[in-house]
Amino acid sequence: MKKIPVGILGATGVVGQRFLLQLHAHPWFEPVWLAASDRSTGKLYREAAAWRLVEPLPERMSTQELRPPRPGDCPARVIFSALDAAIAAELEPAFAAAGHMVISNSSALRMHPAVPLLIPEINPEHLELLARQKQLEWGRRGGGIVTNPNCSTAGLALALAPLERAFGLRKVMVTTMQAVSGAGYPGVASLDILGNVVPYIGGEEDKIEREPQKILGRLEADGVAAADFQISAACNRVPVEDGHLESVSLELRRPASRDEILAAWQSFHGRPQELRLPAAPAQVVEYLEAADRPQPRLDRDRNAGMSTLIGRLRPCPVLGWKFTLLSHNTLRGAAGAALLNAELMRETGYLER
Amino acid sequence: MKKIPVGILGATGVVGQRFLLQLHAHPWFEPVWLAASDRSTGKLYREAAAWRLVEPLPERMSTQELRPPRPGDCPARVIFSALDAAIAAELEPAFAAAGHMVISNSSALRMHPAVPLLIPEINPEHLELLARQKQLEWGRRGGGIVTNPNCSTAGLALALAPLERAFGLRKVMVTTMQAVSGAGYPGVASLDILGNVVPYIGGEEDKIEREPQKILGRLEADGVAAADFQISAACNRVPVEDGHLESVSLELRRPASRDEILAAWQSFHGRPQELRLPAAPAQVVEYLEAADRPQPRLDRDRNAGMSTLIGRLRPCPVLGWKFTLLSHNTLRGAAGAALLNAELMRETGYLER
Amino acid sequence: MKKIPVGILGATGVVGQRFLLQLHAHPWFEPVWLAASDRSTGKLYREAAAWRLVEPLPERMSTQELRPPRPGDCPARVIFSALDAAIAAELEPAFAAAGHMVISNSSALRMHPAVPLLIPEINPEHLELLARQKQLEWGRRGGGIVTNPNCSTAGLALALAPLERAFGLRKVMVTTMQAVSGAGYPGVASLDILGNVVPYIGGEEDKIEREPQKILGRLEADGVAAADFQISAACNRVPVEDGHLESVSLELRRPASRDEILAAWQSFHGRPQELRLPAAPAQVVEYLEAADRPQPRLDRDRNAGMSTLIGRLRPCPVLGWKFTLLSHNTLRGAAGAALLNAELMRETGYLER
Amino acid sequence: MKKIPVGILGATGVVGQRFLLQLHAHPWFEPVWLAASDRSTGKLYREAAAWRLVEPLPERMSTQELRPPRPGDCPARVIFSALDAAIAAELEPAFAAAGHMVISNSSALRMHPAVPLLIPEINPEHLELLARQKQLEWGRRGGGIVTNPNCSTAGLALALAPLERAFGLRKVMVTTMQAVSGAGYPGVASLDILGNVVPYIGGEEDKIEREPQKILGRLEADGVAAADFQISAACNRVPVEDGHLESVSLELRRPASRDEILAAWQSFHGRPQELRLPAAPAQVVEYLEAADRPQPRLDRDRNAGMSTLIGRLRPCPVLGWKFTLLSHNTLRGAAGAALLNAELMRETGYLER
Repeated sequence: MKKIPVGILGATGVVGQRFLLQLHAHPWFEPVWLAASDRSTGKLYREAAAWRLVEPLPERMSTQELRPPRPGDCPARVIFSALDAAIAAELEPAFAAAGHMVISNSSALRMHPAVPLLIPEINPEHLELLARQKQLEWGRRGGGIVTNPNCSTAGLALALAPLERAFGLRKVMVTTMQAVSGAGYPGVASLDILGNVVPYIGGEEDKIEREPQKILGRLEADGVAAADFQISAACNRVPVEDGHLESVSLELRRPASRDEILAAWQSFHGRPQELRLPAAPAQVVEYLEAADRPQPRLDRDRNAGMSTLIGRLRPCPVLGWKFTLLSHNTLRGAAGAALLNAELMRETGYLER
Repeated sequence: MKKIPVGILGATGVVGQRFLLQLHAHPWFEPVWLAASDRSTGKLYREAAAWRLVEPLPERMSTQELRPPRPGDCPARVIFSALDAAIAAELEPAFAAAGHMVISNSSALRMHPAVPLLIPEINPEHLELLARQKQLEWGRRGGGIVTNPNCSTAGLALALAPLERAFGLRKVMVTTMQAVSGAGYPGVASLDILGNVVPYIGGEEDKIEREPQKILGRLEADGVAAADFQISAACNRVPVEDGHLESVSLELRRPASRDEILAAWQSFHGRPQELRLPAAPAQVVEYLEAADRPQPRLDRDRNAGMSTLIGRLRPCPVLGWKFTLLSHNTLRGAAGAALLNAELMRETGYLER
Repeated sequence: MKKIPVGILGATGVVGQRFLLQLHAHPWFEPVWLAASDRSTGKLYREAAAWRLVEPLPERMSTQELRPPRPGDCPARVIFSALDAAIAAELEPAFAAAGHMVISNSSALRMHPAVPLLIPEINPEHLELLARQKQLEWGRRGGGIVTNPNCSTAGLALALAPLERAFGLRKVMVTTMQAVSGAGYPGVASLDILGNVVPYIGGEEDKIEREPQKILGRLEADGVAAADFQISAACNRVPVEDGHLESVSLELRRPASRDEILAAWQSFHGRPQELRLPAAPAQVVEYLEAADRPQPRLDRDRNAGMSTLIGRLRPCPVLGWKFTLLSHNTLRGAAGAALLNAELMRETGYLER
Repeated sequence: MKKIPVGILGATGVVGQRFLLQLHAHPWFEPVWLAASDRSTGKLYREAAAWRLVEPLPERMSTQELRPPRPGDCPARVIFSALDAAIAAELEPAFAAAGHMVISNSSALRMHPAVPLLIPEINPEHLELLARQKQLEWGRRGGGIVTNPNCSTAGLALALAPLERAFGLRKVMVTTMQAVSGAGYPGVASLDILGNVVPYIGGEEDKIEREPQKILGRLEADGVAAADFQISAACNRVPVEDGHLESVSLELRRPASRDEILAAWQSFHGRPQELRLPAAPAQVVEYLEAADRPQPRLDRDRNAGMSTLIGRLRPCPVLGWKFTLLSHNTLRGAAGAALLNAELMRETGYLER
């Protein structure tokens, strides 16, 4: 099978490095174009990127020359974007307008009414929104934009989806304890986080409080109707390298027993599992029985970082049920999410012109 | 003025060390008797205690001989107890039965209907429960037991009290991020907590969900009537040395504006401030305006670790209001709490026979 | 091929867990007997062991029953020992006396004149010492004891061996920065090491200053003649989970250029590589060119934790040359070392009766 | 007594913040002019500085307006400089040329033959070099430049000085484990240092290997003759907030017993102690007897962070003696060092025109 050539926008950052690692050995895709900021243009990848991953930088990728972040420069139709929101807001539509299919991890266009905010296990049908993009300025030449949720939303949405379907959701309270890799590199200064917790992450609470309702929303004639439940989030940064931990309480619309909730999580699966997509975890939501799990350091890499790990399901005196969840923020919360989106799109024909 | 001689039970642990430090230079009290486990009896304090505090061990205290933890051995009537709960359940009543006034940081007897669970700014009148102890077996010879709340309850109760009084409380959700010193020494293993969060602290959630209602309860003829609101807690251990951070959401009974809430905290004070007790903070609840505060490392030592620091008051889509609080777990949450209790008791005549 | 049944002494500790993980899927060995302290006897492995590894506990192992640590109880001749030194001093000779071949990670008998202190790449011929054990009380029934070096010695000895052979060594200065996993579990208290360095590890400096000379010593008629060079060590504990980092300076007997030193490391290999032992790294000593490497978090897992990683070779104004090395303390420094010893012994006939 | 007005160059960085804190309540000095980069000019101090210290920003300082870093703008003759080396190389001579006395923490001019590299307890007579600056271009109008050593040099030089004087030094080996605050703010990225050690700090080893010889050098007619001993340094960054720990080995010229070495440290003092300068520690070098001290977290703040703490003096098989030292890097290693320099200069007439 001939591999699909792809480009990477923002290839040198923390998420860009994950893209590179995932795509370079992928059975379906092949990175042929790497772009970062204008400042890096012309440098070799290994010169421009401060490689921060434990996995070594693949030799073949290390000597690729960085290209300018300009639409006309990219020979591949499909582009993965790990750009910062401010830059993405401008560049992603420009790339789409040039006919590229942009599979983005950026927050810039997630809430745009014509842009799918996609989690393949939950809302694969939202890809139909791409048809609406053809009416937009950026969609006239066949390009499009598909996004994945914020790193702290991803794991939460996967925990909520089975409950919303089985019992209905009314209210959700979530307190996050987020890893430093979520802020990129250099990101969080060590003087800020060593032996400390920072109870604030700019813009983060707003994203968690709005994205899940779109993801779990119903596709209607004129767009996605947001699901009808309230979320309140409190976001904290903790001295952990990878893995966002979240304490969650929620109120269901219909009564559910502990066993029914566990069963809903256990049986949850979707198109990625049916299609056996390469990046799809066999078990989407995995429940850990030990009293003190999940823990970021011990559990984040389970199932290649693509499952939501849950533990400590117990009654909540205020909302009904509470539990703890863990999700790998740069895998299921970023690069892995975009990759799974791309795999679903390929298998369902959305990557063909 | 002649100082009041006091004993310390559990003098070698993390909280016992704080007791020693606070009492050794206190204007009113003087530690004359130090006891730890039988294993330590006869050793010098400096030999038996793994001194873990940044402040140096006072020279005069270092050479005191550790005494056996037996009631008859202690020449002082007043005893501070930093015993573990299991041992305290047995020893504290025994010391009271021998006529000692036990001022305890242990959880063993906090919820006993005749034992004050005291925060001097909130419920000084609960000391009247001591009269009820005279009918108990342990109270026949004039002894008694007074307790302070759990380290994670203390800061929360101080934040809630002004709101309960001004607007009434209906529901409280709290997620804690607790420092390792709360587990004593050696306590949390470094392999468990480096670069990690542990989403479980045995027994902790139960304490936070029940203690505040007793503290904020009304003293009635037959004991304390618990305040009528629900608390749900999720407790996490984080790699922080000192200072418990808590993300709180709550529902009030009567509507309140942001300014009214801030004013309720700002103006909150009680008997310790009126009596100018040595350990009383001038500002009981201090609100920090910066968007990313309070933080454990930067703020825990404000006001000698005796204030509740609050920040980030903002609307909560689920319960109405949410905020972040910080409290020093071994000061206001343990040794400082017991000391303030003792100071109040001295000034209101409860230390006299 | 039928697998060789083996036992594990001290199976529940940090090193014991690594043994279990390595042996359970090994092509040659099969763990059939797990023992820990008397206290654990009769429990299932998963009940008695606080499993601290990121890799999950193999299902088949989790339900094995723990056996008493008594020689007569073990059906396998070969036993891996992860016992603490004090217990090992008594139990390992007892197991050998019962005819077992004990492959030990303990320090108890490393310096015994008849016990090989083995690093297969360096001194495989030291296994001939086993013949001398037949004259000892513990060796009469065909049993024996083989040891691997201390976790901080292993990486150092592998870095020194090529230089000793090529240029001769006269003096070595080493300052270690050691990971907390080296102290076992619970081991180092978090209150001791968060945001801190502890400049003392009991007994450690003595081990590093004496073990390499035995390892690099010449086997003579009456035992091993220690190599003739001086080592001075300063050992520090740092808040790192795995991986010992060491700053080394040394004085050679014969002049060597930078390229000659690099070539000596690069070309270094031994029996494990010739025999293609399963646990042998292809590159024994790997030199990293980046100015700021090796680093524990980024490099410890290279080559399955079995290589010594070196960087920053540069002139030392005092001794001639200096460099930084990294070695995985629970793999090449403990369980992996013992496993490689066992593999070499199997291939060279030492595991046969 | 009228206070001496002073300016601060680089007032918003980590060292600049320490300057502000120390000077604002100093009995002799009063900060009247604060400058940072051009970018900050015109902002209030609290707006431009990311205040990173536990001690609160003094109210009066918080509302000072930041001035441009231009010589003509500063009304005070005395200026404390916390500029980065590259900028200092240009600006400090410019300020001196305008008649300012620059008391600098920067490395830019430390090794200039006419610039004192001053530690008041060691080489107060080096201030006579200021006379030589009058012949330089920057010294024609009465200005001058005085520097303090690098943060990792300061503690080492104080430990070496008593030994050099009493026994003579021949060789020194030092491995540092340096705190993140030494890199300023934001400085070290948390992704680089959490659970890690970075065995490289750009330019640092060169400074430690050369500065002590100048500090301990003899003032001669044509400048300072560097002391005659060799230093070799290996510098590592560790996840510690404040306090540089150093493992040191050394060879003396004349034999010394353990007691003689301890006595040399114990009795060491100089002009700051004789003059009772406000920032001078009573005990310059303090020896800690405990086997596992000094430790950064527990000991860095002793004596207001102005002493060198030493422990673990023991024989070194290679060089003769070895020990561990600790020095607070932003106090004795930066702002406190410059302040002590200024205090000495004031008391010895060097701040008068």
